[in-house]
Order: sequence, then C-alpha cells, then structure tokens
Amino acid sequence: MSTAGQVIRCKAAVAWESGKPLSIEEVEVAPPQKDEVRIKILFTSLCHTDVYFWDAKGQNPLFPRILGHEAGGIVESVGEGVTDLKPGDHVLPIFTGECKECPHCLSEESNMCDLLRINTDRVGMINDGKSRFSINGKPIYHFLGTSTFSEYTVVHVGQVAKINPHAPLDKVCVLSCGMSTGFGATVNVAKPKKGQSVAIFGLGAVGLAAAEGARVSGASRIIGIDLNPSRFEQAKKFGVTEFVNPKDYNKPVQEVIVEMTGGGVDRSVECTGSIQAMISAFECVHDGWGVAVLVGVPNKDDAFKTHPVNLLNERTLKGTFFGNYKPRSDIPAVVEKYMNKELELDKFITHTVPFSEINKAFELMLAGEGLRCVIRMDA
Amino acid sequence: MSTAGQVIRCKAAVAWESGKPLSIEEVEVAPPQKDEVRIKILFTSLCHTDVYFWDAKGQNPLFPRILGHEAGGIVESVGEGVTDLKPGDHVLPIFTGECKECPHCLSEESNMCDLLRINTDRVGMINDGKSRFSINGKPIYHFLGTSTFSEYTVVHVGQVAKINPHAPLDKVCVLSCGMSTGFGATVNVAKPKKGQSVAIFGLGAVGLAAAEGARVSGASRIIGIDLNPSRFEQAKKFGVTEFVNPKDYNKPVQEVIVEMTGGGVDRSVECTGSIQAMISAFECVHDGWGVAVLVGVPNKDDAFKTHPVNLLNERTLKGTFFGNYKPRSDIPAVVEKYMNKELELDKFITHTVPFSEINKAFELMLAGEGLRCVIRMDA
Ligand SMILES: NC(=O)c1ccc[n+]([C@@H]2O[C@H](COP(=O)([O-])OP(=O)(O)OC[C@H]3O[C@@H](n4cnc5c(N)ncnc54)[C@H](O)[C@@H]3O)[C@@H](O)[C@H]2O)c1
Ligand SMILES: NC(=O)c1ccc[n+]([C@@H]2O[C@H](COP(=O)([O-])OP(=O)(O)OC[C@H]3O[C@@H](n4cnc5c(N)ncnc54)[C@H](O)[C@@H]3O)[C@@H](O)[C@H]2O)c1
Ligand SMILES: [Zn+2]
Ligand SMILES: [Zn+2]
Ligand SMILES: [Zn+2]
Ligand SMILES: [Zn+2]
Repeated sequence: MSTAGQVIRCKAAVAWESGKPLSIEEVEVAPPQKDEVRIKILFTSLCHTDVYFWDAKGQNPLFPRILGHEAGGIVESVGEGVTDLKPGDHVLPIFTGECKECPHCLSEESNMCDLLRINTDRVGMINDGKSRFSINGKPIYHFLGTSTFSEYTVVHVGQVAKINPHAPLDKVCVLSCGMSTGFGATVNVAKPKKGQSVAIFGLGAVGLAAAEGARVSGASRIIGIDLNPSRFEQAKKFGVTEFVNPKDYNKPVQEVIVEMTGGGVDRSVECTGSIQAMISAFECVHDGWGVAVLVGVPNKDDAFKTHPVNLLNERTLKGTFFGNYKPRSDIPAVVEKYMNKELELDKFITHTVPFSEINKAFELMLAGEGLRCVIRMDA
Repeated sequence: MSTAGQVIRCKAAVAWESGKPLSIEEVEVAPPQKDEVRIKILFTSLCHTDVYFWDAKGQNPLFPRILGHEAGGIVESVGEGVTDLKPGDHVLPIFTGECKECPHCLSEESNMCDLLRINTDRVGMINDGKSRFSINGKPIYHFLGTSTFSEYTVVHVGQVAKINPHAPLDKVCVLSCGMSTGFGATVNVAKPKKGQSVAIFGLGAVGLAAAEGARVSGASRIIGIDLNPSRFEQAKKFGVTEFVNPKDYNKPVQEVIVEMTGGGVDRSVECTGSIQAMISAFECVHDGWGVAVLVGVPNKDDAFKTHPVNLLNERTLKGTFFGNYKPRSDIPAVVEKYMNKELELDKFITHTVPFSEINKAFELMLAGEGLRCVIRMDA
C-alpha cells in the first residue's frame, strides 16, 4: 500500500540538546510539499559537520534537531511540481542544492545556488519555513535541508542527486558530502599539476579524499599534517607519502613545510576546521604559484589573519563548498567514477553500526578513530 | 670619448633623511661589474612606492639613498658577461628582475625571480653587496636595484628590459612600473570576462592602469573607489563608470558595493597600499566566483584579516607584483602594445618637471594631484 500523501511514522535519532547522546524516537514525517521529495534513507554516515552542530560550541545551538547529511536512499514519494524524480529512484540527498536557474547555477564557476546553498541556521523547509518532522505535534528542526538520521526525510528536489540504481548505496552514501568535498577540493579547485607537491591538513575522511584527488592528479609528494598521530598509519593507504605532526616542532608547521620542500608546497588543501591550520595551509604554499584551498568549517568567531605580503608574493587563497561540485549535475558522474573503479571509496568506510547504535559513530569521531562510520537504517 | 670602464661624475637626487626634500648632488657612479649595466637615464617618473621609502613611516629607513624606479634610458656600457645588451640599446630598468634560470623564471605562473625579485631592504648590488654610487668616497644606497633619480645608474642585467628604439622614452618610461603593474594586475591576474563588473580601489596611476585593463577586457561596469574626490573627474577618461568615496557612507565600503551590484563585483583590484582597502576589495567580490587582486604595498606591520567564511564562499584572493609580467620576456611586447595604439599611456602623464625640480613631483603626489609626473633628466 502506498504511503504517498500520508504522514509516515518512523524512527529518527533526535538531538534534544547540545552534546547529549541522540535518542531514537518515533517521529511523524509529513508528506512532501511543492518541489519536495520524501526519501527512505537506507544508509547514512557521520561527518564532522554533524558533530560541530551537535556539540554547538562554535555554532548556533538549535534544538531539538535531526542531524545527518551524508546518506543514500530511495525516493518514497514526490510533491507537486517534481518531474525529475519518481518513487523508486536511487538518490543521494546533498547539503547544498542546485536550482538550475539562479546566477550561481548558471555560472560555470560556482555551485553556491542562491536558493539552496548551505544554510546551517535554517531549521524548516524553504517552501513554508516549517518543519516536516514532529513528535506529538511539536516540530523537530531540520539540519542542512537533509536530516538523514531518520528512516524517512523530506528534502527539496534541488538537493537530491539521482544516481545509477546499480551503485551500492552503503558505499556511495559517503559521496553525498565528505568524499566529494575532499576529492573535488583537490581536482576541481587546487588543481595540482602532474609532479607537483600537495600538503593536506587534516587526515580525516575529507582530507584523505583530498589526498586521493592528489594521487589521481599525479602529485609527486603528498604531505599529510595532523595533530592525531594515529591518523598517519592509515593515511599511507591513501597515497600520503610524508607526515608532519605540528606538535613535534616548536615552530609553526608552515615553516617546517617550507623547509621540507625548499620554499613551500605547490598546493595545499585544509580539511580540519581549525583556523590555525587554515593560516598554516596558506602560509606553507610556494610564493609565485602556490594555491591554498580551505575546506574546513570554521567557528563563527574565527578570523583568518596573515601579512598581506604573503598574498602579494603571488600566492592564491580560495575556499570551496562541496568541492565545487554542482550536486545534481555533477554527482551522478562521480558515482560513475566509483563504478568504473577510477575512485576508491571502500577504504574510507572503516566502521558500520546499526541505527540503534548511532551514538557509537559519534564516539568514534570524537576519539579520532576511523574515517567514516556508516549507519544502517534497517538494522 | 667613451666613458666605459671609467667612473662617471653626474647629478643625482639624494634622499639624505626620511621625509626631507631630495637634494641634487654630484655623485660618482662606478663602472658596471659582472652582469651589470650602466644606463644613462633620460626620463624617470615618480611612483608611490618611492614616496613610501622616502617618508619611511611604515618602512625601514635606509639613508642616504637614491630613489627612483620608473624610468627609461640608454645603455652607456656593460659589465663582464653581459651579452644581451650593448651600449646604445634603449631600455627600461625594472624593480623586479628575471634571471631566466631559477624555478620562478622557468615557471609560467610566476615572475618572482629567486635572484632578482624586489627587495626593498637591499642597498647594494647583488654581485658584491656594495653600492656603485658615492660622494667623496662615501657610499650612497641603491633602491630596488634601479635608483633612477640619477643621470647614470648601475642595474643588474636581469632587471633591464630592452625595448623598441623607436618607442618614445618620455612616454614608455611609465611602463617600467606603475602602468604595467596596474594593467597586468587586471589582464594577467584578475582576468575579468567580457561583460563582468570590476571594482578598482585607488584611482592613482596604478589603479587607472588597472581600469584601462578592465576597459580593454570589455568590463560592463568599472567602479572606482577613492578617498580623494578630486580623483573622480579624471577617472572618467579611463573608462571608470561609477565612483564611490568611502567617506560618503557610514558603513564599510564593501557593503555599499555589494548593494550597488546585487551581491558583489565579479573582480576587484586594490591599488592603494591601505590595508583597509585590501580587506574591502576582498569582501566586495561576489561569492561563488569573485576574484580580488592586491597590488598596493602594505606597511610592514599590517595584517590582512577576514572571516574564513568569506573564503569558503568560493571567493579567490591573490596578490601580484608588477602585474605578473616577467620584465625581460614580457615588457618589450607591452611597449609594442603602446606603439600599436592598443594601450594608451599619454593620458597618465599629467605633469613634467625638469630634474632640478624633482621635489615638485613629490609635492604633487603628496597632494594627490595628477597621475604621473615625468622628470626630464636633461633639463
Ligand atoms: N566545505 C565543505 O563543503 C565541507 C564538507 C564536509 C566537511 N567539511 C569540513 O571538513 C573538515 C574535515 O571533516 P572530516 O569529516 O574529515 O573531519 P575529521 O574529524 O574526520 O578530520 C579532521 C582531522 O583534522 C585534524 N586536525 C584538527 N585540527 C588540526 C590542526 N590544527 N592541524 C592539523 N590537523 C588538525 C584532526 O585531528 C582530524 O584528524 C571539517 O571541518 C568539516 O566540517 C567541509
Ligand atoms: N605590487 C606592485 O608591483 C606595485 C607596483 C607599483 C606600485 N604599487 C603600489 O600600488 C599602490 C598605488 O600606487 P600609485 O602610484 O597609483 O599611488 P597613488 O598615490 O597615485 O594612488 C593611490 C590612491 O589610493 C587612494 N587611497 C588611499 N587609501 C585609500 C583607501 N583606504 N580607499 C580608497 N582609496 C584609497 C589615494 O587617495 C590615491 O588616489 C601603492 O601602494 C604602490 O606602492 C605596487
Ligand atoms: Zn559533511
Ligand atoms: Zn541555483
Ligand atoms: Zn612603482
Ligand atoms: Zn629567476
């Protein structure tokens, strides 16, 4: 019997307050409205951005909220006006959207859709500003328009990438944020040339995806920088050739890297969220041609600070969301890269837990253990 | 009778101490050594960078010094090992050099030669660290390796561009710094596409050369920003279509520009040297694709500061020296652009003074009057 047009009662992991374990609750999920899609989530994984908004130390606390934005699922039903998607389509919900009409969507250079770009403070759907989730009639907030820590979620059609139905959702779910972000930051934005050196700050999943991008681009040296020494062993599997732990030196890590490379790396990609790492990532690139790309989500009060001469010396500083990929136009092709074995994903998935144990995924990330923990919704 | 190999006694304008009028003195100019060229300067013009190191408020005070770095002249004699140049060649001495051998010179992207890049603290020749200028045996410091406020000067061969002997030196002398810097910052670095909007901060000669680059690139709107309202009338001749004086608003000028343009300009070029203008120039570019280029020389204690989210929103920040031109390889072709009337220079030269009145050029620049004042050495 079709559930289309009906309220669905299902399980969701609700964050009731900052830093407290999520609790699995029965929630009501309203039917999709105009330009919305209701998705049955099969697999979701945890990204550091979820943790930032869960502990809410450097971010606005907005609770109760259903977090989650890296996931794969199947369309359950579609709202009015949705013609690109139909029930049964395999999809990845994405935290940033593509309306296909605004100046950003029409520009070749930007993926920051005016209508659907990431908005961490938005807690309802853009159609009416309201939540589609409730418990006993009380609304539960959305997160990034995706809220994938729920068996069913409602997402704007512009935030849904339709992918190859043969792609294993338990693997490609990680392309809906972290892996595409890191990989794209390198191949679409930093664009190292064959033989160049690349520094990667932060060897979590996003950073290692950036390293994967450097490997695929033919980088000669891939220098990994992390404060957590346990990251290093793992990073070797991702083509990282050298490691630097800033804690091992009594001078700024950018100086260490400049010395190691005789003037600086050709490219750097920052995947930490630490403002200090952002500054180091910029100051460690070679003058004349070095390009630094920022990926990490900073605290809301952070300030990026450098001497302007570092810029005048012909360094380039850029940032990117989602690796500059347009979610609907570009992500299906990234999934194909995985299907064609041009891009490895399996090695990023170090843990799997059933939905009932979602808090374990948080514990693993807080302990700096593993890369991606995939949460099986059916278990 | 040839002067080659001899010490030449000639007139030079010496800065004895910071902020005091230059005084015309008889100096001795030693013959060029290995890889050096002695040049008879015919025309020199004043750039703001000379004024910064003369008043030395935000810079190291190094006196007595012969300033000057925008000039045109004729080779008088060459030192050992110089094969590219011979007496009689028409040349522009350039404040940054090109050895043609280092990684920067071999890179297509950089003009920051390892050997000969700008070094504002260097007061002698790189060959032996000594000055070629003296008065009664006491050395007078060089400036930027050019020291063009002298009838004769000694310059490293890597800092000398050999140009078309038919080019009028009283006009093309301004290509040896300011005009190439501004024009190149736009066409080589900011690279606006046809129809895009460009903001130019600072409507001095460098900024108006950047505007000229925007005009040649087919920019749809060229917004000029300056604190000096007298700059505006003049700027119209350079294709500037709109003007903003930050003093006319009680909010940051970047907000004014973002409102004027519905989200920000596509490109900005900062040509002021003011750190506040550098930050504004960055923050006024459109997210998703905006590119800001810094040109102005900052004070040594300045800090560039912005929220990292401004970067993450896919803005690009870059700096450039000398408009990314390689002095020996590229400048002869820029001179040809003038000869072919693809680039206008005459409108930049608003004043001419005889060498004996060089201090008038300083007064004009300090008063914010005119653009380039050409100093005739023979008068
Ligand atoms: N821009 C985007 O579109 C986008 C998308 C996804 C994730 N992100 C951000 O990317 C970052 C990385 O995400 P992740 O899931 O890989 O997180 P993660 O926690 O798995 O990895 C981050 C790594 O950075 C290291 N680190 C922290 N501070 C450091 C410092 N100062 N120097 C060196 N290493 C440091 C940590 O030890 C950790 O190993 C986060 O900030 C996340 O919010 C951004
Ligand atoms: N990077 C390089 O290779 C290079 C080469 C030459 C000159 N420069 C630098 O370029 C800058 C411009 O040189 P110029 O010869 O045109 O100088 P200039 O004095 O003729 O022009 C500078 C203009 O900037 C304006 N200005 C100052 N502060 C401002 C602010 N906060 N907002 C808006 N406008 C402001 C002034 O009113 C003036 O009109 C200087 O800093 C100079 O040192 C750099
Ligand atoms: Zn994420
Ligand atoms: Zn859009
Ligand atoms: Zn100059
Ligand atoms: Zn060189």
